Amino acid sequence: MNKIQNQQIRLASRPIGEPTPANWNKTIEDIPALEDGDVLVKVEYISLDPAMRGWMNAARSYIRPVEIGEVMRAGGCGKVIDSKNEKFVVGDYVTGSPGVQSYWLIKGGKGALKVNTSIAPPTTWLGALGMVGMTAYFGLFDVCAPKPTDVVVVSGGAGAVGSLVGQMAKIHGCTVVGIAGGEEKTTLMRETFGFDGVVDYKKGNLRTQLRTACPEGIDVYFDNVGGEILDTCLSMLRLKARIAICGAISAYNATDMVGPKNYLSLLVNRARMEGFVVFDYAPRYSEAVTQMAQWIHEGKLKTIETVVEGNIDSFHETFMQLFRGENVGKLMLHVRE
Amino acid sequence: MNKIQNQQIRLASRPIGEPTPANWNKTIEDIPALEDGDVLVKVEYISLDPAMRGWMNAARSYIRPVEIGEVMRAGGCGKVIDSKNEKFVVGDYVTGSPGVQSYWLIKGGKGALKVNTSIAPPTTWLGALGMVGMTAYFGLFDVCAPKPTDVVVVSGGAGAVGSLVGQMAKIHGCTVVGIAGGEEKTTLMRETFGFDGVVDYKKGNLRTQLRTACPEGIDVYFDNVGGEILDTCLSMLRLKARIAICGAISAYNATDMVGPKNYLSLLVNRARMEGFVVFDYAPRYSEAVTQMAQWIHEGKLKTIETVVEGNIDSFHETFMQLFRGENVGKLMLHVRE
Repeated sequence: MNKIQNQQIRLASRPIGEPTPANWNKTIEDIPALEDGDVLVKVEYISLDPAMRGWMNAARSYIRPVEIGEVMRAGGCGKVIDSKNEKFVVGDYVTGSPGVQSYWLIKGGKGALKVNTSIAPPTTWLGALGMVGMTAYFGLFDVCAPKPTDVVVVSGGAGAVGSLVGQMAKIHGCTVVGIAGGEEKTTLMRETFGFDGVVDYKKGNLRTQLRTACPEGIDVYFDNVGGEILDTCLSMLRLKARIAICGAISAYNATDMVGPKNYLSLLVNRARMEGFVVFDYAPRYSEAVTQMAQWIHEGKLKTIETVVEGNIDSFHETFMQLFRGENVGKLMLHVRE
Repeated sequence: MNKIQNQQIRLASRPIGEPTPANWNKTIEDIPALEDGDVLVKVEYISLDPAMRGWMNAARSYIRPVEIGEVMRAGGCGKVIDSKNEKFVVGDYVTGSPGVQSYWLIKGGKGALKVNTSIAPPTTWLGALGMVGMTAYFGLFDVCAPKPTDVVVVSGGAGAVGSLVGQMAKIHGCTVVGIAGGEEKTTLMRETFGFDGVVDYKKGNLRTQLRTACPEGIDVYFDNVGGEILDTCLSMLRLKARIAICGAISAYNATDMVGPKNYLSLLVNRARMEGFVVFDYAPRYSEAVTQMAQWIHEGKLKTIETVVEGNIDSFHETFMQLFRGENVGKLMLHVRE
């Protein structure tokens, strides 16, 4: 095999507020010779997730921060092009956390998951059957524990996690209201995902729209965005309501954090607000994959992806689409040569 | 029986921020003749509770607001002085919600609970064996579900509810840290209640004190105060921590509500924040009363009361002590003639 050069995006500095191109540093490295157990993957798709913004901060969270100078952490998938590991052969598709680079040298084959592309294409294994799907499944069914009679509201309802949450709540029998910004997303939520109600937070009064969509209030709120939308949903809770805190994309670039001022609605309505981290459910991923793959196969669960064609240099611009709300469904970068 | 005049404090206007004497209106009424089923009680003790501030607002909460012109709602206890109801005889002690007035005409005897003063004095039935005790018991054991190995932090730790929560958590085997303001309260928490650690929020840095008291973080936080203390506790949660939202006295007079900006700690730590209302536990009150009466009898649970000697005219000033943090334990007004 010819000598391969690996292009990498490393964290150059920690952002204050919104990330800028100056926060990144591109390096080009030779890939060392494989040792016994190693696997080499050509990265084809890099996953762009709101959580990555948090990993750029110095503060320890549910996972250690990315260090300055380190290749940026990112989910992704690709094809095995060389292997000194009997569990992987050339041509296998794998997912895991390759980071933002064009090649992934998997030491000892650890941390890579071989996926079956006859069940679903590689991009789906990065989306609905990957971390995004696991987050939606366990966040909805475990944390929110919806009853079929519940009114379920999901923000980021046209996004990677939210679109799956809303559709699975529908499959479960719930009344589902999706919140997103713009005509394209509201149409998608209503027509493709079949949500019962939609709210366009960029158009008109949020509270008024939400009251119209949920005249009897909210039993379950799956929060991907935080900010004003969380506060408005808090003010509309029904008794014993449950809020799952999955993310807060509206706040990730904020330098002055604002808390949910209506949190006392939890008291009045005997409600709870609970955070979760998908990794805790790892022992049960196969349960979710089996169920979701079946729903996808039956056409009950639609997977939507925004795939940006580009290369490693496209990373920053693609990442920023998340914060501008430009993607629908799962956002990923297709890394071409 | 001679004609009796009933002195009453009615809501004259709704406060903006801190209540003032102008929010009240005193009326004096003759008490009508008793009809069949009625019971007349001389109110001896009126309960002062932070929740009363919320009842003065127009917004519907877990209970309807007090209307303008209506006698202010308040818990209390007193002695039956006349009865046309076979379930009550003159001399019985009863508790319930008499409101801020010197006599309580109980139509049909409904809403009054006869208490056994051989088990505990009337004031205890208004405190540890009343709503305050029920709130502490179910909020701690049901909402927080502490394990004996847990670190439990309680704010308002020298107050009516908090002092009971902390002591019951100690009985349960937990490590208990109480937060309160001032030397008298911290001494009480440490020496009388036997808390393992105390934090004086009026003295020095809150976070530093709390870190010293809970070097390994917080498993359970029982919140009576909201505001900065809630935010600081959020920043110190351990994995799977539970926060019970019982009240938010620091915010009740606020005209500009501030939310807990560290709420994303719930996500990072897979923690939950849950509100509750004691009335939901009414079917199980007897369980708590039996258990708590036994702990009181055994000397394991100390009940502390601040009893203000006065009359109906003392109501406003006594009520305001709550917001100034002047009381320790259960605050009540002894209504003398």
